[in-house]
Amino acid sequence: MITMLHLLGIDAGGTSTRAALLTSDGTCLGVGRGGRGNPVSDGEEAAAQAIGSAISGALAHAPHVPPGEIVAVTLAMAGGSAAGLADEWLRPSLTNLGIHASAQVEPDLLAMFASGTHEPDGYGLVAGTGSTAVRVRGGEVDLTADGLGWLLGDRGSGFWIGHQVALAVALELDGRGPETSLTPAVLAALEIDAAGQPDINGRPAALARLVAAVYRSSPLRLATLAPLAFADPDDDVAAAIIEAAVAALAQLVLDVALPELPGPLVVGGGVATQNRVHESVVAAVDAAGVTGPVHRVDDGLVGAGVLALRRTGITVDEAIFDRLVETTATARAL
Amino acid sequence: MITMLHLLGIDAGGTSTRAALLTSDGTCLGVGRGGRGNPVSDGEEAAAQAIGSAISGALAHAPHVPPGEIVAVTLAMAGGSAAGLADEWLRPSLTNLGIHASAQVEPDLLAMFASGTHEPDGYGLVAGTGSTAVRVRGGEVDLTADGLGWLLGDRGSGFWIGHQVALAVALELDGRGPETSLTPAVLAALEIDAAGQPDINGRPAALARLVAAVYRSSPLRLATLAPLAFADPDDDVAAAIIEAAVAALAQLVLDVALPELPGPLVVGGGVATQNRVHESVVAAVDAAGVTGPVHRVDDGLVGAGVLALRRTGITVDEAIFDRLVETTATARAL
Repeated sequence: MITMLHLLGIDAGGTSTRAALLTSDGTCLGVGRGGRGNPVSDGEEAAAQAIGSAISGALAHAPHVPPGEIVAVTLAMAGGSAAGLADEWLRPSLTNLGIHASAQVEPDLLAMFASGTHEPDGYGLVAGTGSTAVRVRGGEVDLTADGLGWLLGDRGSGFWIGHQVALAVALELDGRGPETSLTPAVLAALEIDAAGQPDINGRPAALARLVAAVYRSSPLRLATLAPLAFADPDDDVAAAIIEAAVAALAQLVLDVALPELPGPLVVGGGVATQNRVHESVVAAVDAAGVTGPVHRVDDGLVGAGVLALRRTGITVDEAIFDRLVETTATARAL
Repeated sequence: MITMLHLLGIDAGGTSTRAALLTSDGTCLGVGRGGRGNPVSDGEEAAAQAIGSAISGALAHAPHVPPGEIVAVTLAMAGGSAAGLADEWLRPSLTNLGIHASAQVEPDLLAMFASGTHEPDGYGLVAGTGSTAVRVRGGEVDLTADGLGWLLGDRGSGFWIGHQVALAVALELDGRGPETSLTPAVLAALEIDAAGQPDINGRPAALARLVAAVYRSSPLRLATLAPLAFADPDDDVAAAIIEAAVAALAQLVLDVALPELPGPLVVGGGVATQNRVHESVVAAVDAAGVTGPVHRVDDGLVGAGVLALRRTGITVDEAIFDRLVETTATARAL
């Protein structure tokens, strides 16, 4: 008789945290959610609390599973590249829930990759607010490219697109750039209505209002303008921004690609999974030799489960992987 | 007999404030200095204090001039485009010094232009931390281009160059960009010594240190890296950055240029007055029709004096202008 083990896979993100309780055959018994769970950016206490909430939510779906019997806790998160035990700051939360197992930290990008495929080798591309590509070999991150943040990289990311949108609008309002439907769209999004207001030194009042609005907020808020680039497919300025983003993201994949490894390619993040971006990036990297299968994923939750299984010594074959994908999707919907 | 009038020209900048006491024939009697003097960015109280110190310093050089006899106070500053009386917030400082005249605010870029020429028409280009161009006609700002700050414009500025330097270094350290002497220069400037430290996930430790250093500081601090782009004339990456900055600054002048107005062109700011930038920008705009004389200026102090004289009804001819330039330079050195 095979003993069924219980494990926890956790995807701790910059926006929210998700935890999945699973069995060793890849069945997800429940998914729970919590707030932002990164100890570096959110503080250890807040992160531990968010992760505790997510675990608690997952456990609530399976009251028959004694927390003390959970054998593995895998925590995928950014900066989790320096993999190791996350015991110190997470230990009290786990103990409170009756969990004795220690948490193993894994890179969020590895979990994202493993959410799309059970293959040990391939590529991952994530473009949300930031942008990063990884090469995975032997189930580990072999090479990372970019993910350096809005001031040092992340070309093609949501921040980058939103910034280009703001620059294009500023250029038009300053009388130095082409007319674009991005301008009324951005002014509306920022609730700037300067119609009828007199020019200020020969420049439209809307420009001064735009400048004031942008510098009043955190620069990262520019990422909220990114969706506007996708709103009007007939606008040449917007199309050029998306085209440049696609080129940057395709290049990022090619920067980690090896001729002997055609894929698979796992794609995640709000920008990279947009149909227009996704299809163009896939076509571009395919033309350059990354011809393997392509998988789109929502986040790293399934992959955190895959990594938890692997760390427990379980080989994740196609059957287990497919079961994990399917049951996690079902448990998410509850 | 011609009565000699006394006037004050003040250049209130983001770094420091300078005040010049002058007579109606263009003789500068004294220059005083104070701290940052912009009421918008520094607060009205601090700005009034800085400007008061500068005026007080100028008056100290001419104890025979009764402050009550000063007939005009012209204050050049950024955001002074909405010209008008600066009475409310500056009034107490002026009264303390025994000055009855009200302060008239003028755009800093107009003062910068008038520091280089007494002509009523022409162009001004300032590139320091930011970058702006103006067209001046009839002694007033006719058109402004850019100056929108580091997030919305300022291509070719000190911030922009420093940012490009940081991006180039990040790209090399991330294994995606060409080797450049900017990399050791930037690491030294940021006091990052990661020699011998093990790679982090296949990326050099210096990259993680660079990321940490950049995000720890204000983004505007990247402007401090701009001088490194000028340090090694044989470095291709640095040369490409300067070339792009030159192209952006030349374009900015052309964006405000009119075919019927060949100049003069007045150039100011730490980036635009660098020999390599200056000469290339001048050559580029000359080729495009801005063929008038070119003048480099340190700041807007002489121009603030010119504007004070003009607001008093005095025509600033070549003799008065030359006297103002010469005596201001002498008074500055005291």
